[in-house]
Amino acid sequence: MKTNLFTKVLVANRGEIAVQIIRALHELGIAAVAVYTPADQDSPFVQLADEAVCIGPNPVTDSYLNMQAIISAANLTGCQAIHPGYGFLSENAEFARLCQACHLTFIGPDTDQIRAMGDKETARQTMQQLGVPIIPGSQHTLTTLTAAQRVARQLGYPVMIKAVAGGGGKGIRTVTNDDQLARGFQLAQREARASYSDDRLYLEKIITDAKHIEVQVLADHYGHVVALPERDCSLQRHHQKVIEESPCALITTQQRQSLLKLVADATKKLHYTNTGTFEFLMDRPGQFYFLEMNTRLQVEHPVTEMVTGLELIKLQVQIAAGQALPFRQKDVQVNGVAIECRLNAEDPNFDFRPQPGKISNLVLPIGSLGVRIDAGVTSGSLISPFYDSMIAKIIIHGRTRQRVQQKMRRCLDELVVSGVQTNRQFLYDLVGSQLVQTARYTTEDIQNQFMKGWLDGQAKVSATNNDGAAATAS
Amino acid sequence: MKTNLFTKVLVANRGEIAVQIIRALHELGIAAVAVYTPADQDSPFVQLADEAVCIGPNPVTDSYLNMQAIISAANLTGCQAIHPGYGFLSENAEFARLCQACHLTFIGPDTDQIRAMGDKETARQTMQQLGVPIIPGSQHTLTTLTAAQRVARQLGYPVMIKAVAGGGGKGIRTVTNDDQLARGFQLAQREARASYSDDRLYLEKIITDAKHIEVQVLADHYGHVVALPERDCSLQRHHQKVIEESPCALITTQQRQSLLKLVADATKKLHYTNTGTFEFLMDRPGQFYFLEMNTRLQVEHPVTEMVTGLELIKLQVQIAAGQALPFRQKDVQVNGVAIECRLNAEDPNFDFRPQPGKISNLVLPIGSLGVRIDAGVTSGSLISPFYDSMIAKIIIHGRTRQRVQQKMRRCLDELVVSGVQTNRQFLYDLVGSQLVQTARYTTEDIQNQFMKGWLDGQAKVSATNNDGAAATAS
Repeated sequence: MKTNLFTKVLVANRGEIAVQIIRALHELGIAAVAVYTPADQDSPFVQLADEAVCIGPNPVTDSYLNMQAIISAANLTGCQAIHPGYGFLSENAEFARLCQACHLTFIGPDTDQIRAMGDKETARQTMQQLGVPIIPGSQHTLTTLTAAQRVARQLGYPVMIKAVAGGGGKGIRTVTNDDQLARGFQLAQREARASYSDDRLYLEKIITDAKHIEVQVLADHYGHVVALPERDCSLQRHHQKVIEESPCALITTQQRQSLLKLVADATKKLHYTNTGTFEFLMDRPGQFYFLEMNTRLQVEHPVTEMVTGLELIKLQVQIAAGQALPFRQKDVQVNGVAIECRLNAEDPNFDFRPQPGKISNLVLPIGSLGVRIDAGVTSGSLISPFYDSMIAKIIIHGRTRQRVQQKMRRCLDELVVSGVQTNRQFLYDLVGSQLVQTARYTTEDIQNQFMKGWLDGQAKVSATNNDGAAATAS
Repeated sequence: MKTNLFTKVLVANRGEIAVQIIRALHELGIAAVAVYTPADQDSPFVQLADEAVCIGPNPVTDSYLNMQAIISAANLTGCQAIHPGYGFLSENAEFARLCQACHLTFIGPDTDQIRAMGDKETARQTMQQLGVPIIPGSQHTLTTLTAAQRVARQLGYPVMIKAVAGGGGKGIRTVTNDDQLARGFQLAQREARASYSDDRLYLEKIITDAKHIEVQVLADHYGHVVALPERDCSLQRHHQKVIEESPCALITTQQRQSLLKLVADATKKLHYTNTGTFEFLMDRPGQFYFLEMNTRLQVEHPVTEMVTGLELIKLQVQIAAGQALPFRQKDVQVNGVAIECRLNAEDPNFDFRPQPGKISNLVLPIGSLGVRIDAGVTSGSLISPFYDSMIAKIIIHGRTRQRVQQKMRRCLDELVVSGVQTNRQFLYDLVGSQLVQTARYTTEDIQNQFMKGWLDGQAKVSATNNDGAAATAS
């Protein structure tokens, strides 16, 4: 059952996740080939790789989304497999198919599984058939406004318009009455067409005051499935995750067991392999509603690694190489608590607008028990306008939420980033807020409860500083 | 029983341990005052502190060993306590007494306890009385060669000459016959007089093929004592530790339980408080022999933190502030394995001679599960000839020794230090050696088994490189 691992693997990604994948490969004794663009040529992931191939100009469509170029690079360098990381081509069924056609192992689930879960409406229906609770919504794809309005009235407003081909927050909009639906429906159709070349939409009832809870699974080719402790990713801004933690402080051991069993059973019935994540909403009474399944590694996977001690990228590689999962569900323990903050080059005072530029100085608070910092940049690195604005993921593990929060604040307080604006202060204040301390936050709470007060506070600090400056000048 | 913590604490140390202490204080909500010398003025620990006081010129006797200057700095800045770290004044009973006299809490055991354990012969006798097995040796201090020769013949050669006031490897010498003893005795007396102003010596039988095993204790002022899982610090060079791990792979759970009980019982009987470490030799049949007790935190404490999840510096501060230990012996678990490598600026090809200089570039392999790097320097830092040559402690935690060794090698392979020579390659090869993989190494094995082959290998590499250079040049 144990087959040989690959000898060389191409990493079809960039930044911190490319660094993590290269390290996992190295620890498994596998050579790593990086692909990069001119903007990334001096990046740590390029330096760490055993070989590196420039795959095209900076825009992602010409490079990190350029399937032909990536597959050529893999063949030319003698790779046997490709790890897609997250984002980019990681959930692209066509890319997975091309890999297979070119005798390259795509480190992820099968093409059909990616395709099935990529179509969000099909995924909902599939899950419903497998006994996974879904959010009440339209049973079929909606192509006309009349049909949409009829369904919306049945569900009861507010409802959400979603693109069938969508994912990652794009093309989602909330409407609270018929008029808003009429306007929103057309806009959403246009957006979906532009983003995915597919304008099919569906409606979902909005579950208010809900948490975003997700469960990652691992599944090998021999029918072994393990569901990992849940992550609470409710701290979001415009559907973008800001802080994630595992486990969710409001979920009991019994609730966890039944949630994990539900997810593991569905995964088995799907004959799904490699790794994937079931995303749910959890409402106040503790009911779960399936949102979607991501058929890839996620940004926030380190919190799961820290509470379980499992190395998820290595396991992905081992599963893809035909090895059996070396443990069972009963072996998976939750040890303490882990919280991740995403440190980005962005300006929280101006709607978190990305702030590309050169990081002139970066001092990360490395060392100490339970501190992990996954970074893809270093002093002198460029935050390029072509790619995302992430500087580092700061992940803290400890025995209790309180200790982890204290340590996270100490780390955020210590860290120095010069040259670009960041969300450091925003994260520091959010981690110290009542909202985070009680763990009772929902997906809307940053926007509805935290943001206004925080911006007012920032304005006051700014005014005081200006007064101070004026007083000094006079 | 729970009393208030301090509000401000002085850190009477430098480098990585000063950084760790400042961080622990910050997480407890306590302000930290650093003391420093001109050579250290730009060090990370000075930048991290809330206040910093220059306490004198670079030589340690004028600065980090200058009790008056340190106590003045503490009083002037309004500190209530002093954390001495390791080395320097950490085991100086007079300093602890002075702190007390000046109404400053010394974060460590009581003056009497430091003094009692600082006199190594008294410590041996005390332990013997408490039922802790000791190495057969002279029952009393030896002042004449005649007495020493008589005892040596009774014990049987080889024996070790040790300074009563010694510690940390200084003034120790091995002799195998009467003639060597005659020469060594005089030299050791002279050395002890120069180092400690105290030339009393004692003899110990040499336990051959032994491991250096140590057990750290925590004890509060309410009689609660906890002994922590043992560390195997056998990988030494001239009595200096090179690599440490916890737990020892050759010790069974049952052996661990009885060793920890022995240590905890002795600690209780001593009415010892704060933290300290019992050092033992373990011979091939698994018998333990007490060597000495260190009445302070040790360099290698992070391996214990990683396998237990306990934060030892915080606990030291809490105990010193009069808080009770918040857990009991039964709560202490061993989770996986942790290994620490000491990365130093030194040249392994020339007897590990320190290599002071400026670190022009330092790239540490931060990030990933189970990787902790405690460093006191950064790119641009100076490794000063006045102080030790440590660059960083690389500590890896994982489920098995094999995985930890793989990850350690990956990290050592990745890390970049420019500007000074280091023992990086030596550590990399040592971690990958059969010696380390089997865990059967003893305190003499680096010198007796590893070193010669390694130096030969290095010479070959060097010769090949020279040939290559010559070929290119021709």
